[in-house]
Formats: sequence, C-alpha cells, structure tokens
Amino acid sequence: MSTNAAKIAIVAGVGPGTGASVAQAFAKEGYAVALLARRTESLKPVEDSIKSAGGIAASFPTDVSDEKSVQAAFAGVAEKLPGAVEVAIFNASAGFVRKPFLELKTHDMERSLSVSSVGAFLFAQAALREMVKHKKGTLIFTGATASTKGSAQMAAFAPAKFATRALAQSLAREFGPQNIHVAHAIIDGIIDTPTTRQWMPDLFKEEGTYLDPIDIADAYVALHKQNPSCWSQEIDLRPAKEKW
Amino acid sequence: MSTNAAKIAIVAGVGPGTGASVAQAFAKEGYAVALLARRTESLKPVEDSIKSAGGIAASFPTDVSDEKSVQAAFAGVAEKLPGAVEVAIFNASAGFVRKPFLELKTHDMERSLSVSSVGAFLFAQAALREMVKHKKGTLIFTGATASTKGSAQMAAFAPAKFATRALAQSLAREFGPQNIHVAHAIIDGIIDTPTTRQWMPDLFKEEGTYLDPIDIADAYVALHKQNPSCWSQEIDLRPAKEKW
Amino acid sequence: MSTNAAKIAIVAGVGPGTGASVAQAFAKEGYAVALLARRTESLKPVEDSIKSAGGIAASFPTDVSDEKSVQAAFAGVAEKLPGAVEVAIFNASAGFVRKPFLELKTHDMERSLSVSSVGAFLFAQAALREMVKHKKGTLIFTGATASTKGSAQMAAFAPAKFATRALAQSLAREFGPQNIHVAHAIIDGIIDTPTTRQWMPDLFKEEGTYLDPIDIADAYVALHKQNPSCWSQEIDLRPAKEKW
Amino acid sequence: MSTNAAKIAIVAGVGPGTGASVAQAFAKEGYAVALLARRTESLKPVEDSIKSAGGIAASFPTDVSDEKSVQAAFAGVAEKLPGAVEVAIFNASAGFVRKPFLELKTHDMERSLSVSSVGAFLFAQAALREMVKHKKGTLIFTGATASTKGSAQMAAFAPAKFATRALAQSLAREFGPQNIHVAHAIIDGIIDTPTTRQWMPDLFKEEGTYLDPIDIADAYVALHKQNPSCWSQEIDLRPAKEKW
Repeated sequence: MSTNAAKIAIVAGVGPGTGASVAQAFAKEGYAVALLARRTESLKPVEDSIKSAGGIAASFPTDVSDEKSVQAAFAGVAEKLPGAVEVAIFNASAGFVRKPFLELKTHDMERSLSVSSVGAFLFAQAALREMVKHKKGTLIFTGATASTKGSAQMAAFAPAKFATRALAQSLAREFGPQNIHVAHAIIDGIIDTPTTRQWMPDLFKEEGTYLDPIDIADAYVALHKQNPSCWSQEIDLRPAKEKW
Repeated sequence: MSTNAAKIAIVAGVGPGTGASVAQAFAKEGYAVALLARRTESLKPVEDSIKSAGGIAASFPTDVSDEKSVQAAFAGVAEKLPGAVEVAIFNASAGFVRKPFLELKTHDMERSLSVSSVGAFLFAQAALREMVKHKKGTLIFTGATASTKGSAQMAAFAPAKFATRALAQSLAREFGPQNIHVAHAIIDGIIDTPTTRQWMPDLFKEEGTYLDPIDIADAYVALHKQNPSCWSQEIDLRPAKEKW
Repeated sequence: MSTNAAKIAIVAGVGPGTGASVAQAFAKEGYAVALLARRTESLKPVEDSIKSAGGIAASFPTDVSDEKSVQAAFAGVAEKLPGAVEVAIFNASAGFVRKPFLELKTHDMERSLSVSSVGAFLFAQAALREMVKHKKGTLIFTGATASTKGSAQMAAFAPAKFATRALAQSLAREFGPQNIHVAHAIIDGIIDTPTTRQWMPDLFKEEGTYLDPIDIADAYVALHKQNPSCWSQEIDLRPAKEKW
Repeated sequence: MSTNAAKIAIVAGVGPGTGASVAQAFAKEGYAVALLARRTESLKPVEDSIKSAGGIAASFPTDVSDEKSVQAAFAGVAEKLPGAVEVAIFNASAGFVRKPFLELKTHDMERSLSVSSVGAFLFAQAALREMVKHKKGTLIFTGATASTKGSAQMAAFAPAKFATRALAQSLAREFGPQNIHVAHAIIDGIIDTPTTRQWMPDLFKEEGTYLDPIDIADAYVALHKQNPSCWSQEIDLRPAKEKW
C-alpha cells in the first residue's frame, strides 16, 4: 500500500457496511481516504483499520444535508490530506423507512430527501468543483432497489432514491464530456452488515443470498478504473440467488 | 353542467395552463372544484370561468410545501364545498430550472424538492385520508420529460420530478387494492400557456408541436373514468410531432 | 350504431377476449370492422355479434406471420368493406409459454417471434401503407407484463413481447410526425376469457383482480380519440388489486 | 499466458471489433477460446493473434441462427479444446439496419431476429447445457443503444435487440440461483472498428467519442470476475463524450 498518496478518495456515508469497504478498497489502491459520516463513532474504526494496514485516512464528522458542514469537510480534506480529489463516493442515506403511507410523518419524507437529494447535491457540488480543476475524477452514487421501483409503503424512501438517480444521470451527461465519470450503482439486495445479520440471521446461512460489501467496493474500484472510452453510467449489483 | 355536485375534485397547481383546464374539465363533469395555488391571482380567473359556466368552484391560496397550509386548504374544502373528495390532481411545480450544475444554489434544489416531493407528499396524504373513508377516488400526479430522464443541467428539476414519480408508484401499489386509483402522467413536450407562447412563438405556428392543456385535461378525466378492472398507472402525453 | 361507415378498423388476433371486445367497441363507434384470426371459428361468433347489433363486420382468416396471408387479408378488406383503414389493432399472440429454458424447443422461440415480431411487422406495414395515404390513423399493439420484464422461464415469450414494444416505439417516432398515432398497451394482469376462467376459477370470485376485456377495449377507443396535441405512446392497464 | 487452460471461453460473433478483443482478453486470462463466426475469414486473424501470443484458440465457422450449426460448433469445441465451458459471449448481430419502415423487406426483419433472437436463444441453450453440469459459468450478451430505445427507422434492428435483452433478463433470473451469471451489456456508442473508421473518420479525431473494443473486453472480463454475492445483470458502456 502506497503511503505517499497524491490523490484523494472521499467517501460519504461511512458505516460498518459499504462505506467502510469502499474506503478500505480505495486506500488499498493508494488513495488517501477522507471519511465522512454524521457520527464520529462510525468513522474511527474505519480510519484505524486503514491506518493499521499502512494507508492514509482522516475522519470528518459531517452532516451531508447541511451546506456549511459539507463545505467544512471539504476544507478539512484540503488541509489535512495530500493531493487532489479524484474519487468521491456518495453512500449516505437517511435510513430505510417502510411504513403505511398514512402513518408517515412529514419529517420522514423531509429527512429522507435532505440526505439522499439535498445531501447528494451538496456533496456532488463540492466534489465536482475539485474535479473540474483537474478535468479528471470519478463520482459514484450508491442506489438501491428503491431507485427504480416505488414499492408499497416506500413513499418516503423511494422518492429520495429516485431523486439521487436523476441527479447522477444529469451529472453524467453534463460532466462526462469534461472527463469526469459519474456513475450510479443499484444495490439490489441485502448487504452484509452487523445490523442486517441481527435482523435476518437466516438469510446469512447460505451464500449468494446477500451482498458482501467487499464485493461492492470491488465493483466501485472497477468503475473508477474504466477508461473514458467505455464508462458505465449505471450498474446493478445483486446476489446470485436474489429474487427480482 | 350539474350544480348540485355531491363530489369534489381538488386541483393543486392552478395556473393558466394544465391546472385551469383540468379544473374546468372536472367542473364540466359535475364536480365541485377546489382550486389550490400559491397566489390568489392565479386562482380567481379560473374560479370565475367555472362559475360563469354554471359550475361550482372555490379558491384556496395554499403553499403545498407547507403542512399547515395544506391542512388548512383541505379543512376549507370540507367547510365550503359539498360532498366527498373523489378526485385530487397534483399539478404544482416549483418551476422549471435549467442551469449548469455548479451555478445552482442549494436553494434551487430545496425549492424544487419542497414542492414536487414534500408538496406532493403532503397533498397526497391529505387527499388519501379523505378517499380511504369512502374507499374510492382518483389521485393524479403531473409529471414531465424530466420524470424519467435526467438531462444535463437539470440537476435541480429532474430529481424532484423523479421523486414525484416514485411517490405515485408507491401509492398506486398501496392504495390500488383499496380501490383508489393513483396515476402519473408524463407530459413530454411544451404545453400551450401564455408564458410558453411568449418564450417560443415559432413553436405555435404549426399544429402537433405543442400540448393543448384542454387535451391533457381530457386525458385526466379519461384516467378517472377507467374502471378498477383496468387502470393505467402511468401514461405519457406527447404532441404528434415531438422528437423524443 | 351507424351502418354507413366510411372508415374501417382492422383487428388482428380476434378471439373471445380482448380481440372480440375491441372489435365490438369500434363497431359501436361506427367503424366497419375487419376481423383477422388464424382460425375461422374464432372469427364467426364475433362477426355475428357485431352484425346482430347492427354493425358492419367481415372475417378474414389470416396467418399474420405469413406475408402473403396478411396481404390477402388487406386486399380482402379493401374489396369487402367500405372506406379507409383508420384504426388497426395488433392483438395477435402465439400463445403464452412458460417453461424451464432448457426444455424449450427452438420451435417455441420461432413461433413466438413469428407472430409477435414478424407478424406485428407485417400487419403494421400493411396498415401503415393505408394510413399514410390519408395522413391519419391509429395503430395499437397489445403488450403484456412480459413486454417490460423478462421473468424466469419466459425466455420464449418475453423476447417476442419486448420486440413488439420496440417496433411500436420505432413506428411512433417515425409516423407520429405524419399524423399517425402508434401506441402500445401493457396489459399487466389476467384477462377475463373463457380459458382463464377455466384455469384459475378462484381469481374471478372477487372484483378488481382481473381485467375485463370490455374495459381494455374502452381504453383502446380512448387512445384512438386522443387529439394529436396529446397522444399516449404507452399506457399500462392493470386491475386495481394486481400485485406488481 | 497459461497454455494449460482447463477452462473454455466461447465467443460468438467474432469480427475485427468487440468479438476479437473479447476473445483475446479471455485468452490472456488463461482460457482456451472457441471462436464462432459465420465466415472463416473473420475467424482466422483472431485465432492467429491469440496463438502467436501463446494462447489457445480454435475456429468454428457457425451460423448461429441455425440449430444444427450451433450444435456442431459446440460438439467441435468439446472435441478440440480442453476443459469445461465457463464463459460464453454472444456478440453476433445480423448487422445494423436503419431504413424508413415502409422500405424494409420482411427479410430484413427476419434476418435481424434470426441472429439476435433465435441465434441468441440457440447459443444460450448450448452454453447453459454445459454450464449447468458444473454449476458455474458466465454468459454475456452484447446489446446496443437500440436494446432500450426504439428509434425512428430502426424497426428491424431495435426489436431484435430488445428481444436479446429480454432473453438475458429471463436467463439471469432462472440461472442466477444455479450459480450462473447472465449479463447484458448495452454498448451505447460507436465502436472503433475498421468499418466505423471508414464510415465516420471525423469521429476518431478526438478521444472519448468512440468505444475502444479493448475496453469493452475489459468490462466483460470484469463482469466474469464478479463474485456471486455481487453480480451485475446489466451495465451500459459509453464513451465519455457521447450524447445520450
């Protein structure tokens, strides 16, 4: 692992699942990794794991739905980490909500949008401002099953995920010609995290029924490595045995 | 035109285009029509036109992005208009925004979402609370080209329209089995309004190049008249000569 | 019902379900109806029902997958029925096939394509040759759930239905500017026919769980009546209680 | 490059573009590569290039639309190449057709379907019969812009490409749970081949405007290397500067 990284990967939404694995994967690729999450306790174990493997990482507690907080994080990145921002991963989510529509509070909708839509917007703007300077970069948004299907009782979650997908498409069309790769990954299945293992222990008895976050991270690295002749704007990622 | 309407159609987003025509069309079908828009001056001419044609209409200045304002409007409807809410049309929009992404303000994104996503949510909740009482109703959302395609420079508009579409899908799946028809209409083209006529006068020299709001209104009435054996959840509406 | 029809509707795929209802609906609208199906015994009862209601109809046993047969049918229509071809409905299907992929015969695939793809092509060409003469007309293709989703064990049926949908899209884009309305209807559910009633009697115990072909026919007539300012290229039709 | 390959990759549709590059890429990964194309002269240069780089390859002139020809090819593979069929790439196409609909011959439609639909079916069946024996394998179909959009004058090409996509989806859903990865790649742009260079020399003056077949091949290898926890069923591949 190179420790003289002159290039930076920023990951928003670092928790014990996809965010951690993506951060670790880009660290292994030689990137100095900036870790963003709302809570410090989500960041510390990931920062430690990267550092103890010889990589460079720094933590930036951030509320992605808050413009000032996002700006402060990117200012902190410029100050604390060496090199240019080349990779930015938006993996933040306000959390899954499934509820009968008439039981949803306005707050449920607003919170969902504030992260997946406004947060994605703020993060993308800050990242792209850096990337256009060097005419280079990869910006990836994490999507979900709900990015393309509005299922029953998903009226707070699906609109926010649809919105993220629209943002990714629009940015891909605007920034592709500027040599910046914008992609959207539809994660269609249950990701292996401490939380999902607790929720549905039976699911994890068999292989091919859940997504390993390490494999998601590999897919993100592969997206980043694509040449500009041949970029994927949207990929789906799904366990072999998933029903869809 | 029946003036003893015992059933109500509520139209949010009443201006001189689709909103006015939809309101007039349902008035002709015998509905007492509740007109919602942010500005009183948008409402008055439509209310007058319906009344002078012998119909029933009442105006409710409303900010659909504000929970209290929406609740007040529905309370006003219950007070001033006879009958049950059977039709609800969400036609509100924060207005079209096309701008290079890095020039967009956070406010552009938030405003767009506050109407098309939070507003659609609040309006739908208020309307469905009424409709579930009678196990009957039609709820239609007006979409746009940007509901399914995130074009360049549309990063504030498209996410909000994608979100509305997701909401419509989710509600259709939840409330269809309760005999409430939720539909989404993708308006793919320029609608004939005083504003668009001013913007692009050349477009209106030829027929089949723009959408007549009266025809959009007819399509909405046709959606409402579909039997529960055979509902459309999504239709597109497009002028014959549109490129798409 | 007008018996001096100077305009013709041609319906391919006339059986006891959608085809019959569509034919009867256009007869009621004053069209002389040309009935096409492979087997004469499918045609006769529909022809009789239209005539006994005072309408005009003629039967043309046709194999839509055979160029000569389709040409003969259209020649027969010109000879036997008065007026111009204004409506053409492609409702033919080689029949539903659901089977493990490795058990499918090449013949299953070929048969499916020969009707839904080659047949749709031949029928559309013959109909459009007539419609371009008068710069007017409506051409509707009947689709299915399998038009947009390739489910497991549907490897012979879904490709053919996807193909029909592509054809409809391509023709809509080419012939819309010539004032010919090309539409595709996704029938997403079980249609009420003698066969489906026999297969799944329980489904028909409750309303809103199956599609009434009379309602499908109404939707087709509504598509035909849309003004060129405001055409639907694709609609879905689904029972209120369908899971999707 | 390993020359003791015990695993086979079969590529159908080997020409000087994607087919050649995909074959060479899997040869580099240590696969014995079976090359299928209609014309021997398409195969020989690719076979030679792989062999001269130390790889294993064998040519099988095949008409993929002909059941016997496909069976003979797979029998030949079993006879001439060592190991099990682990990778199968369907890259064959009847060739691009863009023509006003009323000028298309039935033959244009039939030819297009015979390769992209019947051919894809026959090839997939032969490949999957091998893969299910070992409960392992990757089957990739090459799609195009016309796989998801039926443009004007594409009425012979788009239906066939839609059909291939439906087949890929159906097979993914049926064979994913059997540990066989079925994917569909939408190639959305002009691929760099001798033919396209001749057609539009100006396009190739700038980078990021066309697809390099070597990069497409890399994307196919990446799909094959995905773990079953995290498979992509559909990816798009597009040059950075493509308008879409």
